[in-house]
Amino acid sequence: MGKFVYAFEEGTKEMKSILGGKGANLAEMMKIGLPVPPGFTLTTEGCKAYYDNEKKMTEEMLVQLEENLQALQMKTNKVLGDKHNPLLVSVRSGAVISMPGMMDTVLNLGLNDETAEGLSQLTNELFAYESYKRFIQMFSDVVLGIEKYKFDQISARYREKTVDHFKAAIDAFKDLVRKEKHMEFPQDVHVQLQMAIEAVYDSWHNHRAIIYRKINEISDDLGTAVNVQSMVFGNFSEKSGTGVAFTRNPSTGEKKLYGEYLLNAQGEDVVAGIRTPESIDMLSQQLPEVYEEFYKVCELLEQHYQDMQDIEFTIEEGQLYLLQTRNGKRTAKAAIQVAVDLVHENVIDKETALMRIDPEQMDQLLHPTFSAEALSKGNILSKGLPASPGAASGKICFDAEKVVALAKNNEPAILVRTETSPEDIEGMIHAQGILTARGGMTSHAAVVARGMGKCCIAGCPEVQVESYLNQVIIGKAILKEGDFISLDGNTGDIYEGHIHAGDVQLFDAFEELMTWANEIKELGIRTNADNERDAKVAVSFGAEGIGLCRTEHMFFDKNRILNVRRLILSDQLKERQAALNDLLPEQKSDFISLFKVLESRPVTIRLLDPPLHEFLPHDIEEIKGLAEITHKTIEQVNQAIENAKEVNPMLGHRGCRLAITYPEIYEMQVKAIFEAACEVKRFGIDVHPEVMIPLVGFKSELKVLKDNLTQVAEEVLNRYQMDIHYKFGTMIEVPRAALTADEIAEEAEFFSFGTNDLTQMTLGFSRDDSGKFIQVYKDKKLFEKDPFASIDQNGVGKLMEMAKTLGRKTRPDLKIGICGEHGGEPKSIAFCQSIGLDYVSCSPYRVPIARIAAAQAVILQKS
Amino acid sequence: MGKFVYAFEEGTKEMKSILGGKGANLAEMMKIGLPVPPGFTLTTEGCKAYYDNEKKMTEEMLVQLEENLQALQMKTNKVLGDKHNPLLVSVRSGAVISMPGMMDTVLNLGLNDETAEGLSQLTNELFAYESYKRFIQMFSDVVLGIEKYKFDQISARYREKTVDHFKAAIDAFKDLVRKEKHMEFPQDVHVQLQMAIEAVYDSWHNHRAIIYRKINEISDDLGTAVNVQSMVFGNFSEKSGTGVAFTRNPSTGEKKLYGEYLLNAQGEDVVAGIRTPESIDMLSQQLPEVYEEFYKVCELLEQHYQDMQDIEFTIEEGQLYLLQTRNGKRTAKAAIQVAVDLVHENVIDKETALMRIDPEQMDQLLHPTFSAEALSKGNILSKGLPASPGAASGKICFDAEKVVALAKNNEPAILVRTETSPEDIEGMIHAQGILTARGGMTSHAAVVARGMGKCCIAGCPEVQVESYLNQVIIGKAILKEGDFISLDGNTGDIYEGHIHAGDVQLFDAFEELMTWANEIKELGIRTNADNERDAKVAVSFGAEGIGLCRTEHMFFDKNRILNVRRLILSDQLKERQAALNDLLPEQKSDFISLFKVLESRPVTIRLLDPPLHEFLPHDIEEIKGLAEITHKTIEQVNQAIENAKEVNPMLGHRGCRLAITYPEIYEMQVKAIFEAACEVKRFGIDVHPEVMIPLVGFKSELKVLKDNLTQVAEEVLNRYQMDIHYKFGTMIEVPRAALTADEIAEEAEFFSFGTNDLTQMTLGFSRDDSGKFIQVYKDKKLFEKDPFASIDQNGVGKLMEMAKTLGRKTRPDLKIGICGEHGGEPKSIAFCQSIGLDYVSCSPYRVPIARIAAAQAVILQKS
Repeated sequence: MGKFVYAFEEGTKEMKSILGGKGANLAEMMKIGLPVPPGFTLTTEGCKAYYDNEKKMTEEMLVQLEENLQALQMKTNKVLGDKHNPLLVSVRSGAVISMPGMMDTVLNLGLNDETAEGLSQLTNELFAYESYKRFIQMFSDVVLGIEKYKFDQISARYREKTVDHFKAAIDAFKDLVRKEKHMEFPQDVHVQLQMAIEAVYDSWHNHRAIIYRKINEISDDLGTAVNVQSMVFGNFSEKSGTGVAFTRNPSTGEKKLYGEYLLNAQGEDVVAGIRTPESIDMLSQQLPEVYEEFYKVCELLEQHYQDMQDIEFTIEEGQLYLLQTRNGKRTAKAAIQVAVDLVHENVIDKETALMRIDPEQMDQLLHPTFSAEALSKGNILSKGLPASPGAASGKICFDAEKVVALAKNNEPAILVRTETSPEDIEGMIHAQGILTARGGMTSHAAVVARGMGKCCIAGCPEVQVESYLNQVIIGKAILKEGDFISLDGNTGDIYEGHIHAGDVQLFDAFEELMTWANEIKELGIRTNADNERDAKVAVSFGAEGIGLCRTEHMFFDKNRILNVRRLILSDQLKERQAALNDLLPEQKSDFISLFKVLESRPVTIRLLDPPLHEFLPHDIEEIKGLAEITHKTIEQVNQAIENAKEVNPMLGHRGCRLAITYPEIYEMQVKAIFEAACEVKRFGIDVHPEVMIPLVGFKSELKVLKDNLTQVAEEVLNRYQMDIHYKFGTMIEVPRAALTADEIAEEAEFFSFGTNDLTQMTLGFSRDDSGKFIQVYKDKKLFEKDPFASIDQNGVGKLMEMAKTLGRKTRPDLKIGICGEHGGEPKSIAFCQSIGLDYVSCSPYRVPIARIAAAQAVILQKS
Repeated sequence: MGKFVYAFEEGTKEMKSILGGKGANLAEMMKIGLPVPPGFTLTTEGCKAYYDNEKKMTEEMLVQLEENLQALQMKTNKVLGDKHNPLLVSVRSGAVISMPGMMDTVLNLGLNDETAEGLSQLTNELFAYESYKRFIQMFSDVVLGIEKYKFDQISARYREKTVDHFKAAIDAFKDLVRKEKHMEFPQDVHVQLQMAIEAVYDSWHNHRAIIYRKINEISDDLGTAVNVQSMVFGNFSEKSGTGVAFTRNPSTGEKKLYGEYLLNAQGEDVVAGIRTPESIDMLSQQLPEVYEEFYKVCELLEQHYQDMQDIEFTIEEGQLYLLQTRNGKRTAKAAIQVAVDLVHENVIDKETALMRIDPEQMDQLLHPTFSAEALSKGNILSKGLPASPGAASGKICFDAEKVVALAKNNEPAILVRTETSPEDIEGMIHAQGILTARGGMTSHAAVVARGMGKCCIAGCPEVQVESYLNQVIIGKAILKEGDFISLDGNTGDIYEGHIHAGDVQLFDAFEELMTWANEIKELGIRTNADNERDAKVAVSFGAEGIGLCRTEHMFFDKNRILNVRRLILSDQLKERQAALNDLLPEQKSDFISLFKVLESRPVTIRLLDPPLHEFLPHDIEEIKGLAEITHKTIEQVNQAIENAKEVNPMLGHRGCRLAITYPEIYEMQVKAIFEAACEVKRFGIDVHPEVMIPLVGFKSELKVLKDNLTQVAEEVLNRYQMDIHYKFGTMIEVPRAALTADEIAEEAEFFSFGTNDLTQMTLGFSRDDSGKFIQVYKDKKLFEKDPFASIDQNGVGKLMEMAKTLGRKTRPDLKIGICGEHGGEPKSIAFCQSIGLDYVSCSPYRVPIARIAAAQAVILQKS
């Protein structure tokens, strides 16, 4: 025997999961003595029972419904269907997680030919028959499924607000029902009620609700509750009305009532937009006593719920009624402002304030965005993966050169490519945004763009770059190079033409919240940065060190790439050494500038990682030039490029494997690191380099490299006669490294999880290719979250935990961090906290997000 | 205080690890009363102490050496350096694992000007001075490092065997030593002894010994022992002699003394090859009593050692002395014959016989081989990975068409390619052997060739195919298409020209041994086969089922590939369905023929695994043809091919991911399997299909596919009104599958480890690309064995064990096997036994090897 129906008096705000948000809050408001029209809630469990019972309410539910209806009639002194004193009710959905407007509502239920006449005698004819007309239309639409516009067509014929017109419209409505459904409009009010409840339950699985849940990652299993509540009428008189208000400004967080209302109107009139509502301030003039009461209710509700509220109310003949309250949705800026203000008002504590922030939402604050108005006018061409947040607008460019050319004239550019490669770096730097046809959330374009804090949409299958025709097909449009497009990196939407993006503005409450995060969080927050600019941004956002400096980006610099290519092409150690000698001073100056920005913070430098062929040229001009300089034939250069090709470069000759075969590359890098460190230390800066060797799978690899590189480091320190505190460690990114972490920790002084590669290998998903199927996986719900966006805790996470446990068994003080893209994702950060890592490292623009998420993780862990 | 020197009387054959093989066996022969000249052994631990002490014997060792020398003098009644009764000794190396001819020996030590004169008085002048001359030459060569040919040049001047000539040669030798080394030839016999011992220790690290150990995978840490033994002289008279004999024929195993000897000669005369030795049979005529004694000694030693012996002996004045015995090296055929015969002779039991066989060596028996004579005359061009055993000789062909054309004329072909792809299948079938420039032990060429039992050499970086010039560079040679080359798949050697290969001949002892293996082994042995021919071979070798039928090979058939391409190119379900409908009857007939061969044995069929683009055409003619048939433009076909390309196909859209996006492919395959099963069952054959879904990483993948495919299967069974016992299971080849095996076992009725992919992903080594660095890894000893050849037990093995434990936790009767290439490798088989798998599956020609290895694994586990 389950309990499927609760009177409002029986509920509390804690019962959301069975009463839904609306039901629980109506009950709560009633509990604290606020004026709520009485009613009852059919539970979400009832919804499940309904679906399990082949979409029929069970006998049990029907019995409980009848009992509660009886009780409601007692409370209101009215009787459903009584022609002298009819009870009218609203029937509304109420999901556990708010899905505004997605499901159905029926108002004025309980009216039929008899009760309408009864109501007209109790009140007035005009009101009664208008209400009856509204009810028939709403019921027919929501419950019977007759399209609304057909009623509107009829209404148009009876435009005057007279009783005769209403009655004529009612007859015409009934005819329409008869014609469409071959039935009489139901006159039995109990049948009306049962049908309406079932229709609301049905609406849980209507198309737009399903879509909404998918987008918002809400489980289909939750079900909705149904609230049956006695009606109050905002359309009763000019002293009646209905409205919606926020207790604070939901855009800015300012502490000031914010909302609107209409006198002599029902809820749907506000929505319909025929009349323009008044600002809530006006109510203090129009109905000052009601305003006063409402103002107090707002204060009370905020205190009670300890958060900004979004309140629906109705005024019937000067009497205020509350129909709903809930925590108000708000922008990121408002979220922070409200949370910080509430702490200052002693309503909540700092921890609660931190928990109120959705870290992901903060991305809005840290990047330019399009205004909602601008977007509403925009024409969406297609949608890709929102790979890096922000908003960008510019001219389409198909290659980096074009971007650079535009940048010289201060013209905005969007780099549009099938996929990007390290050669495109310069174009990415100068572009406003990046759009690619292929690749997922951790593709090259996505990773680099996030690092730069630059808007990027990746993996959009509807983009087809046809650069040989100087055009790109996006969705159904064919655009030429030079045409404007705009990218919304927060949603993945691609817009036609130019849209203006707003600037980033930080503010005091943000800074204050960040200091609170630091007081609470335990994880260190480092950043992934490989140049002075990014490092400065990250430090300004509070980065405590560099967790990943990718040295390969330094190799792609236009002035250096030639030496890199010389290095790769020469098959003799001496020639390679010469090329490396030319690279050394440049690498050194990179490290010097980084060390200066980071000062005494640790700087983890990953030695060269990608396969060498990524550095080789592809176009014939470059190949020619390279052949000249290296005194080789074009055929020889082509042959070398051919030889360097790999079937699966991700699993190929890269990372420490390069250094096993060509030790001189890492030797040069380590020399550059330590010479830079010594030279910066002369300025009195206590540098802390941490040398990180990538792609280790065997302890033996790390040992042979570390032994050699330690010698190189010591040689430099001896030469400079300096003492520098340094560490050698490794990425844990090959599954075998995690499995044998006890062995590897014998050599490694720190671990850093490279969760991009670890995910690729553990799942066997190439980040570049998984775009072809990952969306299908999400649609079919084969996994909950994109494992490249949030750590796959059951699989990859299991390996991480093993590695941590094994590593610390060998070396209890082993420092362990994460530098994969997951290091900036809140759920992953919570996971890192839960398994006891020392720090996370993320792209500069995610540092604040990581700080909040890390603080939340501690709070959650305590609770 | 260590004991570094043992008198022969103190040792036993069990003490090999410290006395070396030779020392332990000399001690053992002395213990059982055989005539062994007395002596003592400096241990392998002495060798380590010597190297640890900067290549000097320690004080302790010198003291023990002196004590043992004193004792030896007592036993022989001779004194080292005594001019009247001089003790002469040999100083020989003796490693733990035999390294024939790799290290150094000094004979006749103890001679100097005085003792030579003393010896001449005791025996005769000619003998004494010839011995002295031999000693100076040998000592100068081995200990002083003066090249031997310089002595030979001097000897040539004094060719007559007279005392004067010997003395003149001795003087000239001493002059040479003076000139080369600026020293007198050492006259102090104790100095001679110490120098000789140290020289033997030094020889452990000479170049050829290091190479030998690397090739034979012998640890550098073992060190060698040194045996000091009183001399007996085979060159003393015509009643003296020296020889070597096997107790059975080492090529065939026949039970008959086999060996040769020379009268009036020392050991090096046999080696020098100036005189032709006599067959051992002749000794029964020349010295019948000695022969008789030797014959008995041979029988005794065989009984004692319970194995065929390889014996060195010397006869001094009619007295037989034994200088060495050891288990004789033998061919695979002889190994089996001897082991089986010894069981019949009640010398050993069946388990011991099985343990005597090196399963890897059996490959020789199961494939054609080149004779040693033929090889000795061959010219080696280069060396690659011995990817599939056997021997092959034929004309170079650069593509499959050419191979097929030659095959039609019965001309032998060798397919030579940079790498092979499934398109080359037909060429591989008709070629005698396959040579590729790229790819490792599990590359496409290697895997397919092994499956076919066909000789293959893969990943030879010195091979550069320039098919556009109609030539290939192999090492330093440039060869044209049509030129002959020969491949030794057992060694990886590539020979110029044509070499004849011998045929395979099995024999009774082989069959008998195999039945013993089956009595003992616990693992089931299945085979990887996807066609009737391979399946028949495997069943004839004793396969108990098919562990892996790769259905993609069936898709590459010339007549079907077009339908496969239609399937891939169409973007509409209906078109795909039509293409699949055309493929169905062909797939079905494949399965029918397999089921008929396998009868009631289980047949595990893996549904389509490779990425679809592998099936698309590459050359323009094929593309044109395809465009015509599919009514598309060439551009459209090219675009489709371009779209299908993947950056890392190994981690891309393949395996079950194909079926998640295109369910109809697996549906067709399952329909074909079950229709075939029903039709074969009508013949009264009780078929057992096991449907295997590849590349599963998430339980959800398996569930959604299994649910769908079970319906398809049941639909077929209903239609045929038949009941067939079938299973659905999965490959465990993605690390995540192993990590979440408890979840996956909820859906899977069996697991099969795909250790090729599991190794690739766990180690992050692409099998196609790792050739670039894996050899360097082996050379630098970063891992012990190629992880694609033998399971990486610490890494991949750990995952396998986890998967087994987790899987059986959920489903205690879960059947678990392995179908990766490792399934046929003895060490990996032992590992599979140790973790409790149910079966291994390997290529048909490795089934006998797997049977032996599986039996050995059980025996080892018991011990």
